[in-house]
Amino acid sequence: MKRTLGTCYYPEHWPEEIWAQDAARMKEAGLTWVRIGEFSWSKIEPNPGELQWDWLDRAIETLGAQGLQVVLGTPTATPPRWMADRHPDMFAVDAQGQVRGFGSRRHYCFSHKGYFAESQRITRLMAERYGGNPYVAAWQTDNEYGCHDTTISYSDAAKVAFHDWLFETFDGDINALNAAWGNVFWSMEYRSFSEIGLPNLTVTEPNPAHVLAFKRFSSDQVVAFNRAQVDIIKACSTAPISHNYMGRITDFDHFKLGEDLEIATWDSYPLGFLEDRVGATPEEQRAYARQGDPDFQALHHDLYRAVGRGRWWVMEQQPGPVNWAPYNPAPLPGMVRLWTWEAFAHGAEAVCYFRWRQAPFAQEQMHAGLLRPDSEDAPAIEEARDVASELEDAPEVQSAQAQVAILFDYDADWAWSTQPHGAGLSYFQLILDHYKALRRAGLTIDILPAKARDFAGYRLILAPGMMHMPADLKASLEQSDAEVLYGPRSGARDDHFNIPTNPLPPALVGLDVTVSRVESLRPDMPVALRNGGAVHCYLEVLEGDAEVILVTAQGAPVAMRMGRQTYCGGWLDADGLDQLITIIGTAAGLALRKMPEGVRTRRTATEEFWFNHSAEPVQTEVGLLPPAGMIRCKL
Amino acid sequence: MKRTLGTCYYPEHWPEEIWAQDAARMKEAGLTWVRIGEFSWSKIEPNPGELQWDWLDRAIETLGAQGLQVVLGTPTATPPRWMADRHPDMFAVDAQGQVRGFGSRRHYCFSHKGYFAESQRITRLMAERYGGNPYVAAWQTDNEYGCHDTTISYSDAAKVAFHDWLFETFDGDINALNAAWGNVFWSMEYRSFSEIGLPNLTVTEPNPAHVLAFKRFSSDQVVAFNRAQVDIIKACSTAPISHNYMGRITDFDHFKLGEDLEIATWDSYPLGFLEDRVGATPEEQRAYARQGDPDFQALHHDLYRAVGRGRWWVMEQQPGPVNWAPYNPAPLPGMVRLWTWEAFAHGAEAVCYFRWRQAPFAQEQMHAGLLRPDSEDAPAIEEARDVASELEDAPEVQSAQAQVAILFDYDADWAWSTQPHGAGLSYFQLILDHYKALRRAGLTIDILPAKARDFAGYRLILAPGMMHMPADLKASLEQSDAEVLYGPRSGARDDHFNIPTNPLPPALVGLDVTVSRVESLRPDMPVALRNGGAVHCYLEVLEGDAEVILVTAQGAPVAMRMGRQTYCGGWLDADGLDQLITIIGTAAGLALRKMPEGVRTRRTATEEFWFNHSAEPVQTEVGLLPPAGMIRCKL
Amino acid sequence: MKRTLGTCYYPEHWPEEIWAQDAARMKEAGLTWVRIGEFSWSKIEPNPGELQWDWLDRAIETLGAQGLQVVLGTPTATPPRWMADRHPDMFAVDAQGQVRGFGSRRHYCFSHKGYFAESQRITRLMAERYGGNPYVAAWQTDNEYGCHDTTISYSDAAKVAFHDWLFETFDGDINALNAAWGNVFWSMEYRSFSEIGLPNLTVTEPNPAHVLAFKRFSSDQVVAFNRAQVDIIKACSTAPISHNYMGRITDFDHFKLGEDLEIATWDSYPLGFLEDRVGATPEEQRAYARQGDPDFQALHHDLYRAVGRGRWWVMEQQPGPVNWAPYNPAPLPGMVRLWTWEAFAHGAEAVCYFRWRQAPFAQEQMHAGLLRPDSEDAPAIEEARDVASELEDAPEVQSAQAQVAILFDYDADWAWSTQPHGAGLSYFQLILDHYKALRRAGLTIDILPAKARDFAGYRLILAPGMMHMPADLKASLEQSDAEVLYGPRSGARDDHFNIPTNPLPPALVGLDVTVSRVESLRPDMPVALRNGGAVHCYLEVLEGDAEVILVTAQGAPVAMRMGRQTYCGGWLDADGLDQLITIIGTAAGLALRKMPEGVRTRRTATEEFWFNHSAEPVQTEVGLLPPAGMIRCKL
Repeated sequence: MKRTLGTCYYPEHWPEEIWAQDAARMKEAGLTWVRIGEFSWSKIEPNPGELQWDWLDRAIETLGAQGLQVVLGTPTATPPRWMADRHPDMFAVDAQGQVRGFGSRRHYCFSHKGYFAESQRITRLMAERYGGNPYVAAWQTDNEYGCHDTTISYSDAAKVAFHDWLFETFDGDINALNAAWGNVFWSMEYRSFSEIGLPNLTVTEPNPAHVLAFKRFSSDQVVAFNRAQVDIIKACSTAPISHNYMGRITDFDHFKLGEDLEIATWDSYPLGFLEDRVGATPEEQRAYARQGDPDFQALHHDLYRAVGRGRWWVMEQQPGPVNWAPYNPAPLPGMVRLWTWEAFAHGAEAVCYFRWRQAPFAQEQMHAGLLRPDSEDAPAIEEARDVASELEDAPEVQSAQAQVAILFDYDADWAWSTQPHGAGLSYFQLILDHYKALRRAGLTIDILPAKARDFAGYRLILAPGMMHMPADLKASLEQSDAEVLYGPRSGARDDHFNIPTNPLPPALVGLDVTVSRVESLRPDMPVALRNGGAVHCYLEVLEGDAEVILVTAQGAPVAMRMGRQTYCGGWLDADGLDQLITIIGTAAGLALRKMPEGVRTRRTATEEFWFNHSAEPVQTEVGLLPPAGMIRCKL
Repeated sequence: MKRTLGTCYYPEHWPEEIWAQDAARMKEAGLTWVRIGEFSWSKIEPNPGELQWDWLDRAIETLGAQGLQVVLGTPTATPPRWMADRHPDMFAVDAQGQVRGFGSRRHYCFSHKGYFAESQRITRLMAERYGGNPYVAAWQTDNEYGCHDTTISYSDAAKVAFHDWLFETFDGDINALNAAWGNVFWSMEYRSFSEIGLPNLTVTEPNPAHVLAFKRFSSDQVVAFNRAQVDIIKACSTAPISHNYMGRITDFDHFKLGEDLEIATWDSYPLGFLEDRVGATPEEQRAYARQGDPDFQALHHDLYRAVGRGRWWVMEQQPGPVNWAPYNPAPLPGMVRLWTWEAFAHGAEAVCYFRWRQAPFAQEQMHAGLLRPDSEDAPAIEEARDVASELEDAPEVQSAQAQVAILFDYDADWAWSTQPHGAGLSYFQLILDHYKALRRAGLTIDILPAKARDFAGYRLILAPGMMHMPADLKASLEQSDAEVLYGPRSGARDDHFNIPTNPLPPALVGLDVTVSRVESLRPDMPVALRNGGAVHCYLEVLEGDAEVILVTAQGAPVAMRMGRQTYCGGWLDADGLDQLITIIGTAAGLALRKMPEGVRTRRTATEEFWFNHSAEPVQTEVGLLPPAGMIRCKL
Repeated sequence: MKRTLGTCYYPEHWPEEIWAQDAARMKEAGLTWVRIGEFSWSKIEPNPGELQWDWLDRAIETLGAQGLQVVLGTPTATPPRWMADRHPDMFAVDAQGQVRGFGSRRHYCFSHKGYFAESQRITRLMAERYGGNPYVAAWQTDNEYGCHDTTISYSDAAKVAFHDWLFETFDGDINALNAAWGNVFWSMEYRSFSEIGLPNLTVTEPNPAHVLAFKRFSSDQVVAFNRAQVDIIKACSTAPISHNYMGRITDFDHFKLGEDLEIATWDSYPLGFLEDRVGATPEEQRAYARQGDPDFQALHHDLYRAVGRGRWWVMEQQPGPVNWAPYNPAPLPGMVRLWTWEAFAHGAEAVCYFRWRQAPFAQEQMHAGLLRPDSEDAPAIEEARDVASELEDAPEVQSAQAQVAILFDYDADWAWSTQPHGAGLSYFQLILDHYKALRRAGLTIDILPAKARDFAGYRLILAPGMMHMPADLKASLEQSDAEVLYGPRSGARDDHFNIPTNPLPPALVGLDVTVSRVESLRPDMPVALRNGGAVHCYLEVLEGDAEVILVTAQGAPVAMRMGRQTYCGGWLDADGLDQLITIIGTAAGLALRKMPEGVRTRRTATEEFWFNHSAEPVQTEVGLLPPAGMIRCKL
């Protein structure tokens, strides 16, 4: 398919006189899409009920007239100041009980019924006005759900809604809840749903079942908030609806929310993410300071391709230094082009740069754009033009199913964060570690939702760390034709965060392994494996009749295999994971390679893309790759 | 005496059908004691006033019928959810003013009169019902007072009670309080007791006299809370009453509380404590990750032997990985046996393992037990069986007074934490450093309460860091036959946290030393001693006519001696302390030895026990000790 | 002029019987000044309206009778406890919304009208009583404004006052505010001033223009509070009025406040400051633990000389260990004398030691004085006597204008802290880095306020990091005869924190340089300069026709020069700054030297003082300097 470019634009930030010129320059740069509107509520409705659409009418007309296609955002991430007078308790409350008030963005609680209705009202007004506009070619709901830790709210509104959610979940039976949560422990039994508090500000840690339920509830509130907007837009418009997700935000189930949308988009800030979302060592942070982690973006591309059931974009692509990371370096020349092409190689339909022109005011005044604040070209626009021209000239990117899949389960991430057992252990990091190992072996990967049951076409499936595994998933994996990797902690809990006891975890079908004991370890005391590499941070004692394929230097089993299924009871370091992937990847009949440091590939239906993320030129089997360099090889 | 084993059991967690089988397996494993009931309030009184004793009746009957002796706990650490409706302000408040609410345990303020009465009510009901039960052989009040920082509460109830406490302390004379605290400083003078606030949320640090008084008050509230339960139980039962203390919790005066009890018990989690209660370096944490600190448990054994005036138990002994430390490794094979025997060597009457069966639900689902959650044997039960069998076969452990004593003063710990002067300095750590030095020299130690005045039989007494020393203590120490070591900071404050000025500290009897200046130092700039070792973190300038026995490399006096008394004005590192202990230990006529790394001894009336806490085999004068190994040598 | 010594005394802390003896000993030690009264409100007015002046009358009489001159402080930093009953909402509120209550000092909000009136009332009463007292030779308002982070308050009183301040600033036009702040961004537009909140507890960061305005407002509140006292005192007294500022407190504009005072004084605690106000590395902290940073005090001397328009004192000079730093070592022998003489060399009229006698009670009981708490001499008094005697015998210190100046702009510090862009970057540290480089080159420096426009007599002026530079300042600097250094970030923002776009910054007069892009860098990834040294943490991309005089190893311009003006677009490390100072200092015709480590000089009209801040003897061109040594060289 034809891949396209775009940008994010705020007509309300600029004099109307320059809109047309901006639009013309966008077109000249080869852009197709322009996203607008998502923070403009105070301009649309400066006073309650006083709607001012004319400026937005003209903005859309001006952009459309230049041949651009508009993505129109609902403005619900930034309710105006007057909303706080109408709904004084609309704000989220943090874990310390502090109200998270007006003055920036995302200042609302998903459970507040009054604001929920307001968000529907403005969405309806907007959808009714622009649902038939020929230039409005796509919609975006709200902006970056969950950003700034906004999924979870400890407000009174959340408490009441949580009661209702629990009532539904347990069919109104409080004893069922008490039994499921094990509330007999520490006399935590409730007599009615209304007695249940939110799991913050307790003396010591709350019941993990309580915490997990609250996380599931909070996720569902986001899904419901979004669905309400989608339903309204769909009634007025046939254009596809999207939402722009963020990087490493796992507080709500993107798969569940994504089911209501046609397109998944995400906001890719490779340098902004590096410092505190990637889990990189200081050495890695220095090495990739101007390129970003070689795998973090790719993982999200694959994840959001799954969330969008194949249809996905990068809605905001970092074009230069950002303003919000602890340190904000500029990208290496060529990286903006590399990031864009990498997204296309992973199947993105479109890549939009955030933002068109750097704003000289307010919170993001230090965030680079395609233009400088004085409207001169910033460095990124030249790279965008290059991509636009390459898109014209080069063959189209043809997507295809990969041979390798990783299951990604938001619920597992909540379970791990509820009970990491070892300080800092996280499901997302476990997935990223496995993803990196596959990429170091030169593999192309699909990510699948936890509710996937059809695994046709895959040779290797990784399902690490899924703490709750429904029985039919276990069965489907066992029945698939793929090699399957489980553990650590796979199947370690039932649906309400209890340890299954009959039998003990993981209780896999056709793989006789039992986790008889679990321990977590200081990061500085790894347990060496016999053939190199190590287990670090987390280690299980395994029993059973399956074949032992990985052992500690002392001979304790670490990974066991039976048929095409393998369970690994330790969190392996990079060398350990490489070893394990070699064993099971070979068994799966995959062609494994050892990628040079910083070089990554992705295979499409017709080509293999090679990307050099390192700051040095690298010699590869397909030729010399300069820093930020790319090669497309026909298969 | 005959030493015994036991376990902690929660019949309310398990189907009644398996109680008898559990009891039989306990008996088979050689256990004598079973503690129950301490978190079961919601099962006993599911609704206010609706008592359900039948299940507990049957549980006690079932356990007793198998020959087990029951320790019955009052359930006051976990008031049920409905209690919060009866007493909405019953919760403690933290230093930031946050209410510490329902949802875990220990959710009450010791000063709340309403909850105080409720705790008396449930205790009375329980004591009346089971006071004459033949199987109830001991009682436990509440559970782990002070755990989760629950001694101090900044609630309104605490403020009112603090006013009363101060009124009593100062005989109703507010001017006496103003004078004692030096409130003229910064115009902090009060006109009445009701004007006094709690010492939190001040602009900069509050008056240390104010802080210390609040700590003393808070300790007294715990003592009063416990005494109320004890008085009620005693009226109904002749069985001994105990409480299970924790490790390194010093917020209340255990000696004072212990005076109301027959038996002191404590909860010993060697691996759980290692990370953040021992003050170990990262290297030490790695070396002892699966064994625990070689001295930390021993110190508590000796401390609680003193608190129990000779009668003490380990009520909860770690049997495998716990759930609550930053990292939770499994013990080295043999350590559960070593820990148990070490407790006996220090005089424990009984050691009970926590818990019988690992719970598959709620907060402690990752806490190992003697059984796995599927009721199979966990590794520890085999070691418990070994100890039970050794107890049958081997000679009984005969306790005896040691030749060396350390004074332990909770008030001193509060004084140091009120005013560490150098970041991170703590009295408990100072005591532990001295204790370790004595143990490295192969000595057996008693711990004595600060109010001890009879020192007959001791050859060496250490009284470091007691910031307030009553005159009669100074006199008693001077008149004893022992070598005595004081300092740093001994006698540095009067009873209301003022520096004595006539004369300056330490003002000891018969030891002419004056501290003319005090300084604290960065931990990375130790002051070397002339003959090896160093002072670190804290150093005093000493004057006086006493003999200088330890000097800095520059010649400044660090320790001075006169008669049998020595004052040391610096916080010595390990080498420095070894040097000092050699000098005064030799003067005391003690036989000093240099223990190998990780090896420790304890002498009883008839034997010397040797324990190897290291992960390597160690050659000692009594033979080769394998990791976790033990040797009993007849004297 | 004749320089003098003094001390800080609290007659209310001591029995009246010893006042006369204290006064006699002060006189004997060579002291001239005694500051009293600044924390004595509860003694002056023990109950509301009940004034007790007699003790203060006698104290002043006693001190004056011995020939001492009294500095009388208004007691407004420590309102008594009863004030909280009269004005329950008088307290400041911290950024987390916590009330900062009674129990220490500085417990008031500058915006509270009720307390404002009380502070005027007590000032008027005091001024009326002592305005004509012959012994009261100077006044001090309040004590250490801004200490303990007390400038900024998030109280309701502050919010209301902020509304008024904004109304004034924007002439009542809310649209002007919206435009100036760029509130269209994220729909933050306000409809009236009363809608504006304080910039705390927002979901993500608030608008930087909002934050900066609140900082400016908060500074103005301090100025207004002080001015009200000054006006009252001036109506009753002709004695000069002072305030004692602190080290590295930049939350209010000391220049603006200082315009209302005759004398600036400050409280110099070289060892107390070292740990967390100097930005020193751990190595530097160890090397200077007993001497203090070699430049930090000097910078403040020069800063407060400017604030006092030539008239300045050290009001509180550290005489030994303090109580409030993380670690509190004693000064090296000789340092108290060195610190005193260094202050004189920088032009101090007087140096007063804090405090006369160490208090044995309350918060500062571990703070050394000239006397020990038992009234014996502490070490510092001997050094004070030495200075007194040297002052008698040696030539007077004659001040003179320096050849080098640094512009210091409090507003720039607020701008940097509002938006550091790179974690931890601060304007104050940038100024200190430049100051240190000048001192390493043996230069003598003046500090000038940001509003200086007359630069006659200066050969070199440094104006780094002034984020907002008014046009007339740019013009004045261009027209001066001096070499001028700008950048990084000079002129980067307009007056309301927007990036100027026509043209881009810095838009200097006669120096064609444009900052086309900005990045911040991890501290561990410096960018090497071609001739040694490096840029660290912050780097700009420069364009323009000016001559490139400093480049990165890769050839990118870092500093550019045209005429006598230089713009440096990077934060240089010490080697880089030395290089740059060499280039522009040589161009300015200055005689540059390389000072030995720890040695610093200051030139007066007639002499050059040399001070050795290191702990080792150092050979210099003027002779061997022992540790803490000083040499005065005639020019």
